[in-house]
Amino acid sequence: MYKKLAKEAYNIQILGSIDSLLSWDLETRMPKAAIESRSEQQEFIATLIHKKETSTKYKKLLSSCIDFSSDKILDPHVSKEQIISLRDWKKNYLKAKKLPTSFIKTLTKTTSTAFPIWVNSKKKNDFSLFSPILEKIVELMKKKASLLGAQEHPYDALLDLYEPNMTVKKLEPLLGSLKTFLSSFVRSWKNAPTPFWLTQSFPLEKQKLFSQEILKRLPLDPSRLCIDEAEHPFTSSLHPTDVRITTRFQENYLLGNIFALLHEGGHALYDMNLPQEYFGTPVGEAISHGIHESQSRLWETCIGKSYSFWKYFYPILQQIFPNPFESISLSQFYQDIHQVEPSPIRIEADEVTYTLHIILRFEIEKALIENSCQVKDIPDLWRTKMQDLLGITPLTDKEGCLQDVHWASALFGYFPTYALGNLYAAQFFAAFQDANPTWKSSIEQGDLTLLGSWLRENIHAQGKRYTAEELVEKVTGKPLSTKAYESYLEEKYKHFKN
Amino acid sequence: MYKKLAKEAYNIQILGSIDSLLSWDLETRMPKAAIESRSEQQEFIATLIHKKETSTKYKKLLSSCIDFSSDKILDPHVSKEQIISLRDWKKNYLKAKKLPTSFIKTLTKTTSTAFPIWVNSKKKNDFSLFSPILEKIVELMKKKASLLGAQEHPYDALLDLYEPNMTVKKLEPLLGSLKTFLSSFVRSWKNAPTPFWLTQSFPLEKQKLFSQEILKRLPLDPSRLCIDEAEHPFTSSLHPTDVRITTRFQENYLLGNIFALLHEGGHALYDMNLPQEYFGTPVGEAISHGIHESQSRLWETCIGKSYSFWKYFYPILQQIFPNPFESISLSQFYQDIHQVEPSPIRIEADEVTYTLHIILRFEIEKALIENSCQVKDIPDLWRTKMQDLLGITPLTDKEGCLQDVHWASALFGYFPTYALGNLYAAQFFAAFQDANPTWKSSIEQGDLTLLGSWLRENIHAQGKRYTAEELVEKVTGKPLSTKAYESYLEEKYKHFKN
Repeated sequence: MYKKLAKEAYNIQILGSIDSLLSWDLETRMPKAAIESRSEQQEFIATLIHKKETSTKYKKLLSSCIDFSSDKILDPHVSKEQIISLRDWKKNYLKAKKLPTSFIKTLTKTTSTAFPIWVNSKKKNDFSLFSPILEKIVELMKKKASLLGAQEHPYDALLDLYEPNMTVKKLEPLLGSLKTFLSSFVRSWKNAPTPFWLTQSFPLEKQKLFSQEILKRLPLDPSRLCIDEAEHPFTSSLHPTDVRITTRFQENYLLGNIFALLHEGGHALYDMNLPQEYFGTPVGEAISHGIHESQSRLWETCIGKSYSFWKYFYPILQQIFPNPFESISLSQFYQDIHQVEPSPIRIEADEVTYTLHIILRFEIEKALIENSCQVKDIPDLWRTKMQDLLGITPLTDKEGCLQDVHWASALFGYFPTYALGNLYAAQFFAAFQDANPTWKSSIEQGDLTLLGSWLRENIHAQGKRYTAEELVEKVTGKPLSTKAYESYLEEKYKHFKN
Repeated sequence: MYKKLAKEAYNIQILGSIDSLLSWDLETRMPKAAIESRSEQQEFIATLIHKKETSTKYKKLLSSCIDFSSDKILDPHVSKEQIISLRDWKKNYLKAKKLPTSFIKTLTKTTSTAFPIWVNSKKKNDFSLFSPILEKIVELMKKKASLLGAQEHPYDALLDLYEPNMTVKKLEPLLGSLKTFLSSFVRSWKNAPTPFWLTQSFPLEKQKLFSQEILKRLPLDPSRLCIDEAEHPFTSSLHPTDVRITTRFQENYLLGNIFALLHEGGHALYDMNLPQEYFGTPVGEAISHGIHESQSRLWETCIGKSYSFWKYFYPILQQIFPNPFESISLSQFYQDIHQVEPSPIRIEADEVTYTLHIILRFEIEKALIENSCQVKDIPDLWRTKMQDLLGITPLTDKEGCLQDVHWASALFGYFPTYALGNLYAAQFFAAFQDANPTWKSSIEQGDLTLLGSWLRENIHAQGKRYTAEELVEKVTGKPLSTKAYESYLEEKYKHFKN
């Protein structure tokens, strides 16, 4: 029976891949005028997936392999990996069943409507345009949380969608500790003068050349990779053999492209190294959004902002852009890319202040879901918290509570995975360093395969054999904490302190 | 009931659009390693479409609107367009029903296998590698013809898939007349010396600039268009708002890109001007492959090789490529792009010899299907016919019977639509000229909208309201013949005769 079930689940996965292609294409190649026709295609596939996932046929197949009340495995011939998959399928089935089709349709329709309203409201810097539909979305999110059900806090039900088994109870101490550490870090920090070249114009063609140099060294299999440009860089994977990243080149933001490439490259590495033989089963999937984000942040920050990385790549950058880099030393450049500067926009934040942006969003989301704040309170709350956490107040809502698309897309519960990604990344990176004391010298020679192989073996190829908690314990020997992340920042930034 | 039926048909069309995206992506952006996973996705969607098209539910809906034996419309509230759609849906249903799922699976599997074999056999110039699988394909084509059934000639059943209502009986006189005309044209032709610049190297970046100039003037809506590069240029449309063309830039083949862009642009214009309000019903579709090809050939040859077109564009070309065009007059250039030269490769053929390549393929295909020739005879037959039609003999099978992918893809019945496209194009173009005596002066000013609007109104926006035969009669006042095409060539080439 397992075989029949796996076949049906495989078909659902194929539909999922097709849905990924539709989304990827929407943001990369699709002609603008096709937006309505694309919604119809996506709605069609989403409905088909939901129908299949909640069908009586699927339930029957599942129940013949696993007992729904005791979690006991009924098919005696299944492997360890198949048991993991069965439990995950069951969990997902129960979740899908809790959300009636009518609810999903309302939610999809609301977010489709909300998107252009959010765009317009942001453009006009007018929160009042967005707030009525955001109120609807928040109501739907509360409904979703209650439909899904959670034992302790309603927000847990939403968190679990992106970071399985994560709860407010586990998350708050982590974020609380970070809040104290990072806020005081930021307040005590004094930057060297802002480097003049940060906003200098760099010809796109040459930026692309430098990108190519990085790509040559990243341990990505080019036969499994496709690279495009998009307004907001992202990674989308249809299959371990079909991984797509997007980057963005901007004349006045050289670093933007470099770090976006490393970030998306990190996501891509995870996806292309997932165990292909388990494609279509949970074991073939990534563990969580937080673990996924750890892979992108590890390459973007731990590696991309390391001295060793630039020891190899800075001479190449100097060669491509003799102006201005010929007259800037490596150590000066290294310091320049470590500016810490509280600023209102999350996606432009440095690696120190970034997590504070996430904490702010989490606190507001949680308050909304637990009813301790209303949508109309958001703009004020945002300003207060921004002052409290980062010591600045955004001048406009456009640079404040209207900046991110997440709420318009009903992605409540998602933001915390960005913060978790930083924590996982630092803890994994520390373990990698312990296991590979010579790592610096290989990176200094432009060899990124040591880290690539370590991640592949310890994390990527494991698929979803372990939960995030289990994986962290297994790979690092310790439960998740903020220690590695705090040490990573302290260790690095002490060199730049004025 | 019509409404319910239309809803179901609309869903089938959405799946068709998704299938188009999968195919487009396969040839443009998909990472190479994803080929197996892509086949699974395509097979999944194709099977789903076939299931829906042949389901009892669909049949019931259809039969409640149209009587299957008398073709009588049973729903009294339907419009003229809906009647056309009902008849077409019925025809397609009966066709789909005649092909068992097992047959379709075998055919799909055989062609997937055949493709790499053909590539390899062509690469090694060894027909014997390809012939065993081609024999299988020919057998399957005979089977398909017999399953579909045809009244007069088995090949008619295959022709009808690409050119509805076309038959060997109607086609042979047309091609016979062309054969006589074109063969004698070619034999009596003496070229001026081959222009030195034809194979000159032109930097790709500058070629792209010139492409942009043409694109600016083509009456294509940029918000509905996406342009990529592909090995073999093609057009693929998901919806009238989502039309995708591909072109190919080659350093040593300046004209290749220019004419490919006009060709694909012509296809794209048809697709984006189809009546969007009928999307999902036959009335919203193109009439046939032949009519589609007429739109591409009209822009590529009738316009793209017209003196008026170059009167506007040649100065731009000269500006972009002062070397060599500054020293070449417009009339010399115009003559240079009208070389007539029998050559073995179809896709490189000029507008005069091109159709002879098609006649050759049609004759061999027909002989194979009616059993008057065997696969093993193809290479010899090809050489004999090539000598007979074009007066040349290809030196290798790679440049002969192995050059095209069509047979490996089981596209028997498709080639004739290329020849029909030329005939339709010339006849439409003559009607356009009659109706718009001032057409030359507008094109000389770079204004291509006169033709664009005429085609839109008379052909594109009609969708499938008429059959190809009806449309030709309606638009040109005459049934399809070879006259317009022959006059078009005679009129033009008489200026170049030595």
